Amino acid sequence: MLEELKAKVSEANLDLVARGLVLYTWGNASAIDRPSGLVVIKPSGVPYKDMSPGDMVVVDLEGRVVEGKWKPSSDTATHLVLYKEFPNIGGVVHTHSTYATAWAQAGRDIPNLGTTHSDYFRNDIPCTRVMRKAEVFGEYEKETGNVIVERFKSIDPDDTPAVLVKNHGPFTWGTDAADAVHNAVVLEEVAKMAFLSMGIHSVFNSPRGALWPERPSMSGHLVEKHFSRKHGPGAYYGQYSLECPDGEDKSD
Amino acid sequence: MLEELKAKVSEANLDLVARGLVLYTWGNASAIDRPSGLVVIKPSGVPYKDMSPGDMVVVDLEGRVVEGKWKPSSDTATHLVLYKEFPNIGGVVHTHSTYATAWAQAGRDIPNLGTTHSDYFRNDIPCTRVMRKAEVFGEYEKETGNVIVERFKSIDPDDTPAVLVKNHGPFTWGTDAADAVHNAVVLEEVAKMAFLSMGIHSVFNSPRGALWPERPSMSGHLVEKHFSRKHGPGAYYGQYSLECPDGEDKSD
Amino acid sequence: MLEELKAKVSEANLDLVARGLVLYTWGNASAIDRPSGLVVIKPSGVPYKDMSPGDMVVVDLEGRVVEGKWKPSSDTATHLVLYKEFPNIGGVVHTHSTYATAWAQAGRDIPNLGTTHSDYFRNDIPCTRVMRKAEVFGEYEKETGNVIVERFKSIDPDDTPAVLVKNHGPFTWGTDAADAVHNAVVLEEVAKMAFLSMGIHSVFNSPRGALWPERPSMSGHLVEKHFSRKHGPGAYYGQYSLECPDGEDKSD
Amino acid sequence: MLEELKAKVSEANLDLVARGLVLYTWGNASAIDRPSGLVVIKPSGVPYKDMSPGDMVVVDLEGRVVEGKWKPSSDTATHLVLYKEFPNIGGVVHTHSTYATAWAQAGRDIPNLGTTHSDYFRNDIPCTRVMRKAEVFGEYEKETGNVIVERFKSIDPDDTPAVLVKNHGPFTWGTDAADAVHNAVVLEEVAKMAFLSMGIHSVFNSPRGALWPERPSMSGHLVEKHFSRKHGPGAYYGQYSLECPDGEDKSD
Repeated sequence: MLEELKAKVSEANLDLVARGLVLYTWGNASAIDRPSGLVVIKPSGVPYKDMSPGDMVVVDLEGRVVEGKWKPSSDTATHLVLYKEFPNIGGVVHTHSTYATAWAQAGRDIPNLGTTHSDYFRNDIPCTRVMRKAEVFGEYEKETGNVIVERFKSIDPDDTPAVLVKNHGPFTWGTDAADAVHNAVVLEEVAKMAFLSMGIHSVFNSPRGALWPERPSMSGHLVEKHFSRKHGPGAYYGQYSLECPDGEDKSD
Repeated sequence: MLEELKAKVSEANLDLVARGLVLYTWGNASAIDRPSGLVVIKPSGVPYKDMSPGDMVVVDLEGRVVEGKWKPSSDTATHLVLYKEFPNIGGVVHTHSTYATAWAQAGRDIPNLGTTHSDYFRNDIPCTRVMRKAEVFGEYEKETGNVIVERFKSIDPDDTPAVLVKNHGPFTWGTDAADAVHNAVVLEEVAKMAFLSMGIHSVFNSPRGALWPERPSMSGHLVEKHFSRKHGPGAYYGQYSLECPDGEDKSD
Repeated sequence: MLEELKAKVSEANLDLVARGLVLYTWGNASAIDRPSGLVVIKPSGVPYKDMSPGDMVVVDLEGRVVEGKWKPSSDTATHLVLYKEFPNIGGVVHTHSTYATAWAQAGRDIPNLGTTHSDYFRNDIPCTRVMRKAEVFGEYEKETGNVIVERFKSIDPDDTPAVLVKNHGPFTWGTDAADAVHNAVVLEEVAKMAFLSMGIHSVFNSPRGALWPERPSMSGHLVEKHFSRKHGPGAYYGQYSLECPDGEDKSD
Repeated sequence: MLEELKAKVSEANLDLVARGLVLYTWGNASAIDRPSGLVVIKPSGVPYKDMSPGDMVVVDLEGRVVEGKWKPSSDTATHLVLYKEFPNIGGVVHTHSTYATAWAQAGRDIPNLGTTHSDYFRNDIPCTRVMRKAEVFGEYEKETGNVIVERFKSIDPDDTPAVLVKNHGPFTWGTDAADAVHNAVVLEEVAKMAFLSMGIHSVFNSPRGALWPERPSMSGHLVEKHFSRKHGPGAYYGQYSLECPDGEDKSD
């Protein structure tokens, strides 16, 4: 049953590895067949190199295994909450991708600082609250889904298809499994860019203010020397000096 | 028409991916044929893996499609402004490369801190001003070109063939499409080096001043022990100890 | 003798290189055969590309070579201390992996900041104390083992199978050589994530407090423009605008 | 003439690219034949992909081309000063490798913070002084060699075979060209580790002192939950729960 969807979910899981978002088995992708309400998800703990569509597990929205030879991903209950509460989504992805996880560990929303972010996510990427002891030691994976939904009370999940679970890592979603993977890849890049931008911003807005030596020194002589030995009539770099046909021979 | 230029522009676009500057379809390269005033540019939203010279779009300087089966890149209007205002350039590239974009998101010029920068760019890489609401909701891509040109009023675009569009990302240009790609690759490396240099500079110039413990501690004993177990008469690392023929066996 | 174990230890050593944890010959893996008390370990200074199971060295717990054509790794004495003092472990790995070594150089425990860490290590990754002159110039490698054991007086080595040797680098262990390699890979990732999280945390908790401009500015206009040119009825990005079948054509 | 040395120098230059230390043509390696006083060096501006031993240039210690169809590297004069002043060295390498160049741009010595550094370099990696206008606009490349030699007045170049030229980048040397390349690779790794260590050190020694919240928060509940769902009798991750044969199935 759902053979086509299994193939897509299997491919989505393998794509997470190919994109560098997953180390060992630290990730999972799923998709839902809305008419039947059945969800296809990665099996728990099966190495990617051995995984094929036939290893995917089919569960219903209450988490009962309908088909499959393996246990479903241990994060299945989180996926199911998202499918139930976000009615327009067709796929869900969870990873521990490095930069997004670093923001989750710092417990901070990823600020929307540029068009790369805005092209995909209308809001800052929200980070969930601390989970309570009863939530952690109760139905932990389901409660993980619940704190995500709680955080999206005033955010449209279709406009901002990503979240950081505090001290854990990102979940993304999309129209299908491939779109959720795409959003996971973009989220990681956006998380890296925001990390770098905040670092630059921090250096230039340090407490020293005007006393801060804003940059290391470089003499104007050296700039002029290096620029002019590769450009203009006095250039002496490379074999062809003044003819610089393909931009490959400017330097040494 | 312009088959040779299409091949070069197609190759330039693929080179952006090979160089690691483009994720998914987040980049575009173009070139101009100055005699005819026609510009060859990447189609919008066509995946790189399927792209060939025949997919390139030919437009005139007013943005009218002269030839091509696809819509041109949505950033075409920005490219056209640059070709019109910077008369010596033959190619334009736009990417969201990670480090350059991080500087654009921080809204800071990339300072010229070394000869790697000076070999290619005479000035700091300038960052454009905040775009006004009317510019953003008007002819946005054309206005993006206009804020770039505005920023270059007192900078020679031939000496510093790169710009950061604030909260967006870099544009570079050059004598042709390949040269613009070359400059985009160098810009990303220069942006990374400047990020790292500012970080080092910041640590050593922190507000604590002289009270700052400038470095973590390491005992002189440990330095001496490790250096001497690999070098000199008492060395005991590797199979050959005193004979160290190729520098490969110094460590373990 | 111990041919199967030699094959596993050889493979574990090669896996360290494949995983990007070892530059040149800067790493070593070993395993113990508990019934015989014999340890199989990498030879010292043999390039990985030439290494095969037959190059592994067999030593007893006192460090005497029992079989092998090469000198054992110069870190053998450290491995032996760990096998003697941590009775449940079957494999040991030492690397100079970049981020874990950076924490060791800073002399700081790696804080447990997230579930990626907690999935493998119950505690912060402890860093050993400064070694004394007599330890450094005495039986240095054995004393390195001793300071590790000293640090684990109140930590269960089976729950937290990793340590940072101050100013040096990480050792990990596990049920066998492959498990010790796995833990070395996870440690490096956890070390990177903790570095990034502390950086983010630091920016948001800077001395300026409420006066700190917590983020670079981005106008709401720009967010709205970029989000809406790719989503909703006014979208004009890509060839297919409103139909966005595979998530590949959202951007340009 | 010197065919064997040309082959080694050509290979050393290609190895710089393979090791990721050189972008485009931004690097050069040379070696000296001490009996004849002749130096074999990379040609200026020839792309690596087209380079073979026959392209190497032979010069004497005064810089006169003795054999070769190309101009020698524009940095040749720097190499020659090093060969003349450091009598034990057999090879020299110059790169713009990212982290080493970042330290050079910050104008800071790379502190010796660990055994990775001490295994190869006895001292901090020294950074040269600012070059004077007359030096920059005079015999620039030769003066670059001179400021390096000046910096090594009280440092043994055989013990610390690397330098940072301020605002420029690293030079390394060694017993031959391959050894100089090896030292360039190690220098880049040591530069990266020192950057990261200083960053960690900086966060923990910030001006807030005891008021500084040294780490982001993570509840003990979450640590316990995650550790115990993968370890011990209550583990429920993966297919095999309590049997964890190869360390691959711990996570999801």
